Amino acid sequence: MKFTISNELIEKVEQLVQSKNDEAILDLLNEYHHADIAEILEDLNTEQASYIIKLLDSEKTSEILMEMDEGDREKILATLSTKEIAEEIEELDTDDAADMIAELSEERQIEVIAQIEDEEHKAEIRELLTYDEDTAGGLMAKELVRVNENWTVTECVREMRAQAENVTRVHSIYVVDGNEKLIGRLSLKDLLMASPRAHISTVYIPKVDFVDVNEDAEEVARIMQKYDLEAIPVVDENKVLLGRITIDDIVDVIKEEAEKDYQMAAGITQDVEADDSILQLTRARLPWLFLGLVGGIGAFLIMEGFKGTFEKYAVLFFFTPLIAAMAGNVGVQSSAIIVQGLANDDVKGSINKRLIKEMFLAALNGFILALFLFAFVWITKGSFLTALAISVSLVAVIIIAGLIGTFVPLFLDKKGIDPAIATGPFITTSNDIFGILIYFWIAKLILGI
Amino acid sequence: MKFTISNELIEKVEQLVQSKNDEAILDLLNEYHHADIAEILEDLNTEQASYIIKLLDSEKTSEILMEMDEGDREKILATLSTKEIAEEIEELDTDDAADMIAELSEERQIEVIAQIEDEEHKAEIRELLTYDEDTAGGLMAKELVRVNENWTVTECVREMRAQAENVTRVHSIYVVDGNEKLIGRLSLKDLLMASPRAHISTVYIPKVDFVDVNEDAEEVARIMQKYDLEAIPVVDENKVLLGRITIDDIVDVIKEEAEKDYQMAAGITQDVEADDSILQLTRARLPWLFLGLVGGIGAFLIMEGFKGTFEKYAVLFFFTPLIAAMAGNVGVQSSAIIVQGLANDDVKGSINKRLIKEMFLAALNGFILALFLFAFVWITKGSFLTALAISVSLVAVIIIAGLIGTFVPLFLDKKGIDPAIATGPFITTSNDIFGILIYFWIAKLILGI
Repeated sequence: MKFTISNELIEKVEQLVQSKNDEAILDLLNEYHHADIAEILEDLNTEQASYIIKLLDSEKTSEILMEMDEGDREKILATLSTKEIAEEIEELDTDDAADMIAELSEERQIEVIAQIEDEEHKAEIRELLTYDEDTAGGLMAKELVRVNENWTVTECVREMRAQAENVTRVHSIYVVDGNEKLIGRLSLKDLLMASPRAHISTVYIPKVDFVDVNEDAEEVARIMQKYDLEAIPVVDENKVLLGRITIDDIVDVIKEEAEKDYQMAAGITQDVEADDSILQLTRARLPWLFLGLVGGIGAFLIMEGFKGTFEKYAVLFFFTPLIAAMAGNVGVQSSAIIVQGLANDDVKGSINKRLIKEMFLAALNGFILALFLFAFVWITKGSFLTALAISVSLVAVIIIAGLIGTFVPLFLDKKGIDPAIATGPFITTSNDIFGILIYFWIAKLILGI
Repeated sequence: MKFTISNELIEKVEQLVQSKNDEAILDLLNEYHHADIAEILEDLNTEQASYIIKLLDSEKTSEILMEMDEGDREKILATLSTKEIAEEIEELDTDDAADMIAELSEERQIEVIAQIEDEEHKAEIRELLTYDEDTAGGLMAKELVRVNENWTVTECVREMRAQAENVTRVHSIYVVDGNEKLIGRLSLKDLLMASPRAHISTVYIPKVDFVDVNEDAEEVARIMQKYDLEAIPVVDENKVLLGRITIDDIVDVIKEEAEKDYQMAAGITQDVEADDSILQLTRARLPWLFLGLVGGIGAFLIMEGFKGTFEKYAVLFFFTPLIAAMAGNVGVQSSAIIVQGLANDDVKGSINKRLIKEMFLAALNGFILALFLFAFVWITKGSFLTALAISVSLVAVIIIAGLIGTFVPLFLDKKGIDPAIATGPFITTSNDIFGILIYFWIAKLILGI
């Protein structure tokens, strides 16, 4: 069951491609699942991978290509003629076909579509290309089993056998009226258990979940998860059945969403992978680092501003990394909890209540930590007042960092901005500056300078 | 289609519960999906929610309870008698039933199981409770449709009608031999299209994916995603068919895994939510903050060690928050990319190659940032040497921070430890200390102090 790629396997494939031993390549790869072959091809260079794609049957290669990383797929598609790409497209379900075409240049898109022979497939792909990729329309496939409410079960089964040949997985059978409007559904199980002479109108289930073709992809994911759906029909504003979305596409949406949030929290703006080029990675990472640099210069200016005040208390300056680190950590913690809660639709109620709760939470954490810090400074430095100044500041900084971390994502969410941008470097940097400012200000007050 | 909870709705339900207007409650809630009712109950207090659970039919309430947050569910279960819980359990599929029972105290578990009337259901739940929750056994349900290779299609359909009553969703029909060993599968579509007199042994597909009952849950998720499976059979070491796992359970595994990694990156150790108590949140957050405190004290000691330098070059000290922030940010970025790559099984090849790549990447980013910093310091401070010292240190710190961020998760992964712990506060804190140390050391060298 388990497939693990090995260096030996890759070397063997490379050798076979080198010696153009087509028969041996076909024999070897025949054993593997298309998802496994995709992994193998990702480890070859483009020329070798392209050789194999051209060698294998397009029924298999279309699936292999869809399993590959977008970047690797693009490179291989660039080596294929538009005719060859059209052949791959013919084999794919409409949703995958539209996704693959969308990755091509506009010019090549037109050429490829022109060369698709199946007219219905062509028209369906053209339709799908008109929808935004982050909507239900961008996720759906046109392949589905639809039956008319006026048919009998026997007619329905006959009709379905014809339709089912084009549909890889039959989840639900959608029931439409004479105007192609979605009116209900039928499971294969129901059909299996119904009398053959019964009319569909007497056995179908009128309660059916559906989404509008313009619905946001993330909202579709939320609905399908909440109601445990494995497929959902997509309709237009007149409830005419347009297509269906299956759970495997939603798994991808969920994963991408989670990865995007994770990367934002880590200060990476674009969707990058460990294997991307140094330039791509730099583009994704440098803007956040630059933000950090500006923040650091801000911190420098603040400290310089307090230089005169603290000639006598150099020790205060030595605690700024501690203060900045604590402010950053607390801010990231509170914002992460809020961002995650918002993503799961768990955060309800007023902002004020959240802020009060966070204040108590931060105060409790801050107090415990400040006790340790107080003991450390008092024992090592022997000055009660210095220890007090540093510890009291720490509590204040932690409370304010927690409040900022809670408030900013809630505020962004209210304004319709993705709250995830408020995590990571953004919150760390602003908390660094606020933290250091508050720290020196309180210290000054307590030490009476 | 869309359900949004409103304050009016909650108040209405509260009023109806207050006045014990059972009929109106039933009328009102009857309209809603069980997942929606779960959301409503989460917004009531335990007493009110429990009143509704006791009022509604257990066929519906069992589903409602399974949709609720674990914490809210636990509170309601605490108000129910073991007899009432057993009634809920009778309605649930074996996997959900086992999950719900596992949340009870050991004593109550025994009482509840004893009161389950359906002997087969009872035995199956007992079996499921023996598996670790993070394995295939912990995820699987016993409900599935299994047919014998020696049956005809007609016999099979008859037998399936009986079995299917207990199975909510028929994904695949599993084919077993005389010893209950899994030998293949059959889709409903295949069955629909086969001749009624054909023997199963002539129509089934011998190629079937399966997982071992002790397989890790995350590995099951990876397999199901990679091969786009909607259900996978689970077998024991003799390939005897034990149960099946469906994609909706896997969606939960994927989400939980992503949330765990996200929380680790934000310095939150336990699975907490925004609505958890202040004490729970403190337990999850304080350990990481304490780590930050210790790191901060480390930074203090280093700076104090360079105190002599401070007298002459106080400006160096004012840049420590900048250096620490940059070291932290770079470390988090590189570790996040590696952790995500490891989770997606994208990171292959030698550690050395990764480290060399990260070195170039960090050097490029560091160089660009250092140019700005150099210009800033030179212009505002007028000292070429100071500007040089700070900028060169910045490049060195960024490179080393990047290397640590890359190396630590790869190293942990090799040792079989979850690399996600290497993100967030762990990497920020260690990079703070290393960063500051390297900074002063290089600055001292260049300034010749």
